Amino acid sequence: MESLHLTRCSINTATLGHREPLDVTIDRIARAGFGGLAPWRHEVESADVSKIARQIRAHELKVSGYCRSTYFPASTREQRLANIQSNVRALNDAAELGAECFVMVVGGLPEASRDLSAARLQIQDGIGALLEAARRLGVRLAIEPLHPMYASERSVVNTIEQANAIARELDPHNDGFLGVAVDVYHCWWDPALETGVASLGDDKRIFAYHVSDWLVPTTDMLLDRGMMGDGVIDLQGFRRAIEKAGYAGMVEVEIFSRDNWWKLPPDQILQTCAARLRTVC
Amino acid sequence: MESLHLTRCSINTATLGHREPLDVTIDRIARAGFGGLAPWRHEVESADVSKIARQIRAHELKVSGYCRSTYFPASTREQRLANIQSNVRALNDAAELGAECFVMVVGGLPEASRDLSAARLQIQDGIGALLEAARRLGVRLAIEPLHPMYASERSVVNTIEQANAIARELDPHNDGFLGVAVDVYHCWWDPALETGVASLGDDKRIFAYHVSDWLVPTTDMLLDRGMMGDGVIDLQGFRRAIEKAGYAGMVEVEIFSRDNWWKLPPDQILQTCAARLRTVC
Repeated sequence: MESLHLTRCSINTATLGHREPLDVTIDRIARAGFGGLAPWRHEVESADVSKIARQIRAHELKVSGYCRSTYFPASTREQRLANIQSNVRALNDAAELGAECFVMVVGGLPEASRDLSAARLQIQDGIGALLEAARRLGVRLAIEPLHPMYASERSVVNTIEQANAIARELDPHNDGFLGVAVDVYHCWWDPALETGVASLGDDKRIFAYHVSDWLVPTTDMLLDRGMMGDGVIDLQGFRRAIEKAGYAGMVEVEIFSRDNWWKLPPDQILQTCAARLRTVC
Repeated sequence: MESLHLTRCSINTATLGHREPLDVTIDRIARAGFGGLAPWRHEVESADVSKIARQIRAHELKVSGYCRSTYFPASTREQRLANIQSNVRALNDAAELGAECFVMVVGGLPEASRDLSAARLQIQDGIGALLEAARRLGVRLAIEPLHPMYASERSVVNTIEQANAIARELDPHNDGFLGVAVDVYHCWWDPALETGVASLGDDKRIFAYHVSDWLVPTTDMLLDRGMMGDGVIDLQGFRRAIEKAGYAGMVEVEIFSRDNWWKLPPDQILQTCAARLRTVC
């Protein structure tokens, strides 16, 4: 299998622990030789988005994704509309940044609800409402299925198949603005992984590919992701499946690691990412 | 929806924290009015199984399940055969206890492996090898899909659909000895839950039904399950689906709760289980 070239690789800024201003992070990522980055809204929204966009263009970096949507489900109609509006505002920034996609972490159950079906319907409605703005602004929407352990609080969309079904229902003619972000951490366990990825590929709906690793043991459900190669995910097998499905886009590293990587200097994290991307991904 | 009668309810002994000898636990469960229990092998194997079986019969308790199989996957053929032999021995005890089923938690990835497919094949082989002994001894095998967060260490069978596919492949004529244990904690998030349960029901393969709850937040991936009603699982909706699929067997409470329920007196846990089974399940 061909080793990844860093120009095809991107760093999600969360990987560095969000300890520095975005402009410093962008310079670091460019200096380390990566071809792209994926910034977060709180970083961009607290800075000057035009200036950030210029800095990214000056470095000729790609923006592999813009993280991430405001959760769609809510207890009241007003709040659901406000969530959609918040996402429309973010889409404007995604357009200015030239992002390959807007990453949609769709949200879990609203406060005091046990109704998964209702939450899923609210999410379909929300994505449907956002899709028009996405087309107008030329920003692709990438639904990111999250690991089932996040179903209550972060996402009631938990498999590739489920994300693809939503995309097909909302966008049957498939004009290229609604797809899926595939993250190995969320999907590696899925017995339907290969068929799901192949089916996404047939539809040309793979908009992003995120890597990290599943550590054994995992000590925190949110903030203990592993560096590629340190866990049990068959990363090369996963990439083969993704590429067989036609994906030739960026490979984005997204690692939340409070007690491990986030304690190390950002440049050391970047060097390790680069080495692992070349050897185990 | 009709309230559950305690005679239809069973207590998995793990719910009490395994703090007392099994004979004491059996007396407690009977005294509290439950119709059954699900003991663990380490309890039974360290006691006199015939004596335990007599005590259970004297109380007219059902054994809703016998917990649980030795994991099937292993790095060597010798170890895989040893695992099957260990499970055959346990089946003998399950038969003596009159268990409704032998609960099969099938195992995760073997040491240093990243090959999910290989582990899944080893599991199919193992269950296939066990099925003959199960028929001979008259003990039903219940494959329990575990939550995907346990894929690395405990089970690479993670959905109802996947468990049912294994059952169908190994036992196409369905003579009643291979089915599935459905646990709300493991399956509640699944977008294919309703179709999966209905399909299991069509095949008459629902052998057990376990309840607990998913807490928000969940602070430990293994030992922070909630008491029914304290979390976000739609327990009544789940029971409706299970009963619509034809299941009329025991409702078993299985709660691992190191820092909460296991700190309380066993009788208080049992009283709370009884109250919650009647009101929220």
